[in-house]
Amino acid sequence: MVTKEILGRGLTSTDNVLIAATWSEPTEWMSRIRKEHPGIVVNYFLITLEPIEVYMKGGSHVPDDYFKDVTIFVTMQYLPPPELAPKLEICTILSAGINHIANTEIYKNTNITITTSNGVAGPQISEWVMGHLLGHTHRFRLFEQWQKEHKWSNNWGSFTGNPIRDLVTQKIGIFSYGSIGRQVGRIAHALGMEIHAYTAHPKPTKESRRDNGYIVPRTGDREGEFPTKWWSGTDKASFHEFLREGFDVLVFSVPLTDDTRGLMGKEEFEILKETKTSPFLVNISRGPIVNTVELEKSLREGVENGGLRGAALDVVDPEPLPKGHTLWDAPNVYISPHISGAGVSYFERCLEIVGMNLKLREEGKRLINVVDRKRGY
Amino acid sequence: MVTKEILGRGLTSTDNVLIAATWSEPTEWMSRIRKEHPGIVVNYFLITLEPIEVYMKGGSHVPDDYFKDVTIFVTMQYLPPPELAPKLEICTILSAGINHIANTEIYKNTNITITTSNGVAGPQISEWVMGHLLGHTHRFRLFEQWQKEHKWSNNWGSFTGNPIRDLVTQKIGIFSYGSIGRQVGRIAHALGMEIHAYTAHPKPTKESRRDNGYIVPRTGDREGEFPTKWWSGTDKASFHEFLREGFDVLVFSVPLTDDTRGLMGKEEFEILKETKTSPFLVNISRGPIVNTVELEKSLREGVENGGLRGAALDVVDPEPLPKGHTLWDAPNVYISPHISGAGVSYFERCLEIVGMNLKLREEGKRLINVVDRKRGY
Repeated sequence: MVTKEILGRGLTSTDNVLIAATWSEPTEWMSRIRKEHPGIVVNYFLITLEPIEVYMKGGSHVPDDYFKDVTIFVTMQYLPPPELAPKLEICTILSAGINHIANTEIYKNTNITITTSNGVAGPQISEWVMGHLLGHTHRFRLFEQWQKEHKWSNNWGSFTGNPIRDLVTQKIGIFSYGSIGRQVGRIAHALGMEIHAYTAHPKPTKESRRDNGYIVPRTGDREGEFPTKWWSGTDKASFHEFLREGFDVLVFSVPLTDDTRGLMGKEEFEILKETKTSPFLVNISRGPIVNTVELEKSLREGVENGGLRGAALDVVDPEPLPKGHTLWDAPNVYISPHISGAGVSYFERCLEIVGMNLKLREEGKRLINVVDRKRGY
Repeated sequence: MVTKEILGRGLTSTDNVLIAATWSEPTEWMSRIRKEHPGIVVNYFLITLEPIEVYMKGGSHVPDDYFKDVTIFVTMQYLPPPELAPKLEICTILSAGINHIANTEIYKNTNITITTSNGVAGPQISEWVMGHLLGHTHRFRLFEQWQKEHKWSNNWGSFTGNPIRDLVTQKIGIFSYGSIGRQVGRIAHALGMEIHAYTAHPKPTKESRRDNGYIVPRTGDREGEFPTKWWSGTDKASFHEFLREGFDVLVFSVPLTDDTRGLMGKEEFEILKETKTSPFLVNISRGPIVNTVELEKSLREGVENGGLRGAALDVVDPEPLPKGHTLWDAPNVYISPHISGAGVSYFERCLEIVGMNLKLREEGKRLINVVDRKRGY
């Protein structure tokens, strides 16, 4: 047990935590936190039942005077004007990225510590990715059709000309290798695939390949041990070299920045054609990473003409995808409405990070998932 | 290089190999084998274009006089009368199990070595298993419906009351832990699941947990390192104890024997109900392992009444499932027509085993996947 004498902090917490979120109140977690940190104040403010809409509009609904004693504010997006929260020391954002709060006063003009929830979505989203890859590879939609028709057709010859090949030794390119990419890598490795990891900056050392952020226990690739090859670069040439390697599966799990907007365009689909590997393309990052027109064209060209073998898209450009858009009905495409991260584990794990940081703070140690304002994440 | 002097065999092979199978002639493999084993004779006999039907009927179509010089016969099912094949030393069966040849003269009344293709289907079938588990967990059929309707509905609230929970820490029971079960275990481990392995006989030592048969490179669980708990027994009581552990996922990958026929019946579904875990049940072994009436009843009861959360069935009882059968349309069921092992890798890997054994034989070493007639597999 760390004592007051050693670290200069008491075991009785004087923190005042306010959580404003859209999930129902985590009463069990709150009881546990109160037990673990005698003296702590924890309040919960349910901001709405329509999370995405409010999130997108930046709404808050938290009354101004709620902030006056708060030392730790846990929030999806809204940050109060600093003068409303004179005691605020830490803001924890309930998402991986923080680009949506970059223009707030707190971010720009204070030294209030900001932490993220980066890492919580790794398992959920990577399961979405690998589920689609497996379902497409193993013709689940065909079997579903047969099931609907009550058709028992166990003639392996059905697949002559287009046989099923399992994923062992197939090559997967993961762009980039963050918390989601690493869990995709972990599963792909278990499937016997060959993993290529792309990162913005080179990872020549063991230390540089390490993931130092929050990782859901039992998952991920903390030491970066699964890739057989590492690629890097923020320029087009580096990305093209990577694409020329020729992949069976290509996963985009990269933040949207000026460097990555329109990453997969006409020229890049041409390179894919040259590789003759007709990858299965997955986009779970942001729609504008991939040019929609070129993507649909590639799907419609089909494998025999060097097009994609298929695509799983949780994000598209534009969003929402209009009702009449032709991408909806392109062959071998799987579209879900930006929902791959939706699940009960998301908020549970966010709270796990809050709990971990409360403990680290009490022990006088370095918090995890702290934003470096110079880096911008 | 091993020389004739050391092991008593020449580097020039005098083997005469006949392969009778339903896939197209593996010309590349045959050239390679001829190059690696100068003097060897390798012939291929394409037996039909309708594999399953012929396989089920035990047909052969290989003319009797083809066997007179054959030393190694590679076959799906048919074994010639021993007097037609006086030089025969090895029969390699192109399937994992050999119960279908147990009544042949060669099996009963000769000492001709019999090897199996056990291990080749691990990746293919385990991908089928995990694909269904992921697809069901992550509501792919709902997304597919939305896609068909061109519906963009990114309201996470859609899942209120029935939220998605990813597989991290979920408990999977694998019955039994053979070559398919082990690859299921490998993937489940990568997903962060807790793995329970059931085997007929106890595995108290490291040695006993080892898989000594053919394993597709990069896959499986050779050392049995993934399970957190091992279970065993051939009696009902042991199986019931296992079921009472309470699983989120229950996979049947066990051969059909007198011990396993009707394994999951009324009593067992009652036990599942008591555990309140409503598992997702997967059967890729043989239909009669699970009682169809009880299975369908459990699916129709639904999670709220202690029924299964879903089931993925590549095998059912009866097969083929009749067109009007009510199981086809039970809720949360995925049925495919005994086809989960179908893929190009199957035959490629069978040939890999044949190649490995040719090499081992030439080096005077022990072959792999040899049937022990006393054990019966």
